[in-house]
Amino acid sequence: MRNRQIILKAYPVGMPKASDFELVERDVPKPGPGQVLVRTIYMSLDPYMRGRMNNNRRSYAEPIKLGEVCQGGTVGQVVASNDPDFKEGDFVADFGGWQEYSISAKGFLRKLDPDLAPISTAQGVLGMPGHTAYAGVIGLSKLKAGETLFVSAASGAVGGVVGQIARIKGARAVGVAGTDEKCAFVRKELRFDACFNHKGDLAAGFKEHCPKGVDVNFENVGGEVFWNAFSRMNLHGRIIICGFISAYNDTDLPPGPDRSGMILGGALVNRLTIHGLLVSDWMHLWADFQRDVSGWIRSGELRYREDIVKGLENAVPAFQGLLQGKNFGKLLVQLSDDPTR
Amino acid sequence: MRNRQIILKAYPVGMPKASDFELVERDVPKPGPGQVLVRTIYMSLDPYMRGRMNNNRRSYAEPIKLGEVCQGGTVGQVVASNDPDFKEGDFVADFGGWQEYSISAKGFLRKLDPDLAPISTAQGVLGMPGHTAYAGVIGLSKLKAGETLFVSAASGAVGGVVGQIARIKGARAVGVAGTDEKCAFVRKELRFDACFNHKGDLAAGFKEHCPKGVDVNFENVGGEVFWNAFSRMNLHGRIIICGFISAYNDTDLPPGPDRSGMILGGALVNRLTIHGLLVSDWMHLWADFQRDVSGWIRSGELRYREDIVKGLENAVPAFQGLLQGKNFGKLLVQLSDDPTR
Repeated sequence: MRNRQIILKAYPVGMPKASDFELVERDVPKPGPGQVLVRTIYMSLDPYMRGRMNNNRRSYAEPIKLGEVCQGGTVGQVVASNDPDFKEGDFVADFGGWQEYSISAKGFLRKLDPDLAPISTAQGVLGMPGHTAYAGVIGLSKLKAGETLFVSAASGAVGGVVGQIARIKGARAVGVAGTDEKCAFVRKELRFDACFNHKGDLAAGFKEHCPKGVDVNFENVGGEVFWNAFSRMNLHGRIIICGFISAYNDTDLPPGPDRSGMILGGALVNRLTIHGLLVSDWMHLWADFQRDVSGWIRSGELRYREDIVKGLENAVPAFQGLLQGKNFGKLLVQLSDDPTR
Repeated sequence: MRNRQIILKAYPVGMPKASDFELVERDVPKPGPGQVLVRTIYMSLDPYMRGRMNNNRRSYAEPIKLGEVCQGGTVGQVVASNDPDFKEGDFVADFGGWQEYSISAKGFLRKLDPDLAPISTAQGVLGMPGHTAYAGVIGLSKLKAGETLFVSAASGAVGGVVGQIARIKGARAVGVAGTDEKCAFVRKELRFDACFNHKGDLAAGFKEHCPKGVDVNFENVGGEVFWNAFSRMNLHGRIIICGFISAYNDTDLPPGPDRSGMILGGALVNRLTIHGLLVSDWMHLWADFQRDVSGWIRSGELRYREDIVKGLENAVPAFQGLLQGKNFGKLLVQLSDDPTR
């Protein structure tokens, strides 16, 4: 039996190119003592992965080594098991990477109950992106009813959950997205109070939709959206720094003027708190997150959308599209049949 | 009886010039019903005052109007009183401004007991600067024993108290100051664990004196000292933004590259928390601050130094010197005899 994999061939400079990756075929490995072999059904594509493809910057995780399989969360089914806790046919969430089969060491695997929620959600609304949103809003932001929360990439895997939790908690949820269709989805399906197109007039959008300023900015994108939100931060506002998709492919610092003093000066004048958010710091909220978000999904209060691309050979173009905001909802690549659908 | 005052004649561009101010002489006013007339003994000069001399930027306080007396904290003695809570001869802390006599509305006045502490300390270690230090370290920083706190302007009115509280709390206190004499004072008198000259090799200084990185950076100055501290911040470090003396006279944003993304990216990678600090948010800690700091002064655990300039006509040069780091300790201008010394 053969295992197709995508390996990192070169560290990308700027936007990743097809030639930075290689699709290779190897034998499916056999699980050793205590190990489990998993057939990947869905692999998750997330913006943070771009950071692991740099070997020249400090980040929160080690870079992928050249020649190694690209890393990422997966959902799959156990094919063979030498671990008494998992049996053939079990559905699992895993960190299997960009390949059709993977061996997983115990401790990384998590069994899924397909009757509780679609298994694909284990890498989306009920997985790392949903947990990130929950940790940021519930754990860090101190958001209060009546306040205004602004989130960029509002139709994305994290942003969509962020705004819905804000709305559930009684706050005003305002987002931006990159197409009018995404904005309509965020307003109508996700029921944000407002969502406007960030390719339009940003200042006018903020003025209209955040008439009382911004109390919490959940930052996913950076760039001019950030600066517009920053200029409208209220006294004692909080900024949650989750990511900067707009800068992930930058190779150099942008040209001047140097606006770093505007951030520090603004933080002083308005007594802001700026927090960096990484979900792995918030595992103590995992059980609360699972309980609350799965409950909100069952009650219809919280909704999600998946953007599923088929076939490992389409993973790299999908990943390039993700970094350009071309996906619409949580981006997954389906590598084999999902028997639960 | 005549009252000499310094009024703001022009909003300074860059470093304040002598011609931006004017020394005028007017009649001493008479206190109205419920009012108190105070003879100023000491007036406080503090870096924040520069921000009140701009009318083209957003700050946390309204700018001084042209033709008005420059604002600031004072210590004085009651000359005449129509307020039953204050009598002639009482020593008071006040917000009287740059003048020899002032009328104070009730609510701004605070009676001082010269037997408890020298009255001058009411605008220094036991006043706004000390309270700022206390609020930042005790209220905001979550500093733990064994951690490293770094503070700029370590011999100044705020920085000196910051590092001493850190040391009292069992943390490693490291500072920078602008002369070797100030550094020696910070090490020997204030008993910081280390203090080095920020005009020397900053990277080497940080490497030697913060061998385990920086957990809390209490920022008073900005500029390259900030960037060096920032590059050594530990995981989950905290940055307290108290001030940016180095930028108070800037007229434009500095040239590029734009380093704002370094702050936000660094906050994400190291999950930093950046807080803006303004002491007026922390009045609920006033009683704790007075009890703790006066106790530490009495026990000898906390020391302070005052830099007293005599005569209202020397206030402007002293203020210019403050913005250039020429003072050595808490800067006060003495306008009349202190009967308690």
